[in-house]
Amino acid sequence: MNTPLVVGVDLGGTKMLAAPVDRAGRLGAAPVRFATGSARPGPAQERAVEDAIVSAVRATAGGREIAAVGLSAAGFIDAAGAVMRFAPHLPWREAPVRDRLAERLGCPVALENDATCAGVAEFRLGAAADTASMLLLTVGTGIGGAVGVTAPGGERFVWRGAAGMAGEFGHATAVPDGLECPCGLRGCWEQYCSGRALGRAALRHGATATGSGLTEAAAAGDPAALAAFAEVGAWLGAAIASACAGLDPERVVIGGGVSAAGEVLLAPAREELARRLVGMPHRAVPAVVGSHFGEQAGLVGGALVAHDLVG
Amino acid sequence: MNTPLVVGVDLGGTKMLAAPVDRAGRLGAAPVRFATGSARPGPAQERAVEDAIVSAVRATAGGREIAAVGLSAAGFIDAAGAVMRFAPHLPWREAPVRDRLAERLGCPVALENDATCAGVAEFRLGAAADTASMLLLTVGTGIGGAVGVTAPGGERFVWRGAAGMAGEFGHATAVPDGLECPCGLRGCWEQYCSGRALGRAALRHGATATGSGLTEAAAAGDPAALAAFAEVGAWLGAAIASACAGLDPERVVIGGGVSAAGEVLLAPAREELARRLVGMPHRAVPAVVGSHFGEQAGLVGGALVAHDLVG
Repeated sequence: MNTPLVVGVDLGGTKMLAAPVDRAGRLGAAPVRFATGSARPGPAQERAVEDAIVSAVRATAGGREIAAVGLSAAGFIDAAGAVMRFAPHLPWREAPVRDRLAERLGCPVALENDATCAGVAEFRLGAAADTASMLLLTVGTGIGGAVGVTAPGGERFVWRGAAGMAGEFGHATAVPDGLECPCGLRGCWEQYCSGRALGRAALRHGATATGSGLTEAAAAGDPAALAAFAEVGAWLGAAIASACAGLDPERVVIGGGVSAAGEVLLAPAREELARRLVGMPHRAVPAVVGSHFGEQAGLVGGALVAHDLVG
Repeated sequence: MNTPLVVGVDLGGTKMLAAPVDRAGRLGAAPVRFATGSARPGPAQERAVEDAIVSAVRATAGGREIAAVGLSAAGFIDAAGAVMRFAPHLPWREAPVRDRLAERLGCPVALENDATCAGVAEFRLGAAADTASMLLLTVGTGIGGAVGVTAPGGERFVWRGAAGMAGEFGHATAVPDGLECPCGLRGCWEQYCSGRALGRAALRHGATATGSGLTEAAAAGDPAALAAFAEVGAWLGAAIASACAGLDPERVVIGGGVSAAGEVLLAPAREELARRLVGMPHRAVPAVVGSHFGEQAGLVGGALVAHDLVG
């Protein structure tokens, strides 16, 4: 069959994943990895990353007709889903990325924040598909987030925010005037429970592993790696408790690269959440679970948003 | 005319306000104040506060037929709006207040958290009626909150939370292991920017006024009172910035007794919000405005929820 394709693209700071994704969130092929180019701002760099996206989409489509492309990207996107306003790890600044790519690709393009995309995937089809509300936190190099709610009339949706910037729980304050954050603020949660925080904690506890090696070391029982995960997991639980005070979601989903560690991260997070959630014991503690789509959540969610465009 | 009435009741720790309220949020008469009785838990105390509510409603109705009653109450109410699970300043513990009162009053009763009620009033008819999303914080003895959002399909609503406990931004963490809070946690925002925090700041700055006298002293230019408002206002701005990181609302509405001070509280809050909001300058700072309904917001919102019950 030759049904027109929807291609999902997940664009991070150093790499890009692309794959065809159907309406049910199933990948038509294993996602292919592409390099993204420089993160330095500038017109040439913007053009280079757009070239890379166009090539990745065409390679993924392999000559088939493309119905729409969903681009999940790590950055601040405007409320209309048209302009990449700012992205710390990508060259775009106030760039009309959606329309530029749509013109070059000759099809509709959906542009959405990567954590929002992951939220769409998990809330519609993934780890919170059976709930009425969800808080998603993606714990990677930094922290992203998304909120899924249900209107009294029954409409389920991920809340994008008035400026398209909802879900930045990683940049709420954890510690007044605490650690400096690349976002320009101080004491953001991201500085205490992200991949970067895990790396620092591991160093402090004397771990020899780094990066994803820490996950393997923890799985193998390395005490320093376990201590680092316990510390970062406890901070994560405190972050969840603060977010849940305002939102009161039915379920909390933890995604992002660091969440691949599973229970060594989630168990201390659950403990701290139960300790720091307001209104205990007069309420249930929301379940904290790992993501369903894992590192493909952004890709799948981006494609789902693109499917919405073409009905 | 003898149209059946909807009576709104706003129940605080020491006093209760009651008035007939129409669908447009207009009061049929000035609200009448009643005492609520003891805050100590126990069956006799529960009965006494329910007696007080029944008397207040009947006195307000003055013999006219009552279509429905909306009870706005300072406490944790379950997701069904039936059970008062816990209220620090009221005697109920896991009490089926809605059905008990409906039986005694012979009409439907809506039971809802007071900040949620204030949110309904401000989002539907008040200071955020012209927006698609709102964060309301009520700054009184403690801090309450409510979140109004709009679904992609257009439905506007106040998000109640999975457990009916959304909006407790006052009990997110401002300072890890900071000041003790009556909720049982430590370092809650409520300890840094509520009426109680204002009183402490005023003492520290050497103010001679207390309570609502502080508002008058600040209006008269008293430096100690002004310093206390500036300090608490800055903390409030930081609290707003943290809540806005996750929610990204179009407008922020500040209600509750302390907000009667107006600009001496709101101006420093706005300054601190602009300083601490993530993503600046690549986004607009949401406007921070005073409430429209003032101390009647809970009463009006409770009545609006009761109007919903009777179509």
